[in-house]
Amino acid sequence: MIELDFDKAGGLVSAIAQDVETGQVLMIAWMNREAFEETVRTGRAVYYSRSRKKLWRKGEESGNVQQVHEIFVDCDTDAVLLKVKQIGGAACHEGYASCFFRKVEGDELTVIGERIFDPKKVYSS
Amino acid sequence: MIELDFDKAGGLVSAIAQDVETGQVLMIAWMNREAFEETVRTGRAVYYSRSRKKLWRKGEESGNVQQVHEIFVDCDTDAVLLKVKQIGGAACHEGYASCFFRKVEGDELTVIGERIFDPKKVYSS
Repeated sequence: MIELDFDKAGGLVSAIAQDVETGQVLMIAWMNREAFEETVRTGRAVYYSRSRKKLWRKGEESGNVQQVHEIFVDCDTDAVLLKVKQIGGAACHEGYASCFFRKVEGDELTVIGERIFDPKKVYSS
Repeated sequence: MIELDFDKAGGLVSAIAQDVETGQVLMIAWMNREAFEETVRTGRAVYYSRSRKKLWRKGEESGNVQQVHEIFVDCDTDAVLLKVKQIGGAACHEGYASCFFRKVEGDELTVIGERIFDPKKVYSS
């Protein structure tokens, strides 16, 4: 199995998801060893949620999984880049295609993404 | 000034650099508040080196700076995405365009990037 450097960040590596077709950067999250190995094995993105302290199988609740086409590892072996197809079109829980839907313009953040879904209708409270 | 969430990771946010023309993800690093503010102010990527515990003005040594064209902020306000022009063509200290120059193929990592420069000739020991 491929050995990543999980020691530098307390058992985790950074994971960037990029749309395999458009090249849009969708999100950044974390993986522990289990999440990385399950991602490689299943071809679906699995992260580690630092707030919930458990595996986060992306799309488990909403059905909007990420199909992993390619995985790249960086020079320090502490970050991975996933080229994915985002089912449903929106990676962000706010309903945008990308979590990076706000742009720095002067001293302000301007929303530049378009909402794919209304989060109130997808996630129950 | 724009307020990012520096508290979640001990004073740091993640920073992804992406080539503004090709969309290639070049690297991931960290920024503290000072690095972020200097990046916004100067239009050149400044990171924070966790190992050296100080600001890392990318390209200061090699001349291969990153000109920042756009900055995006993610939904959690703890990560930024920089669209950059990488002077010299290589973001990685190993001499590759991208730090993500190795691909997961089965149980192995395969080098898929082409070397732009020989690191031995650029960085003195």
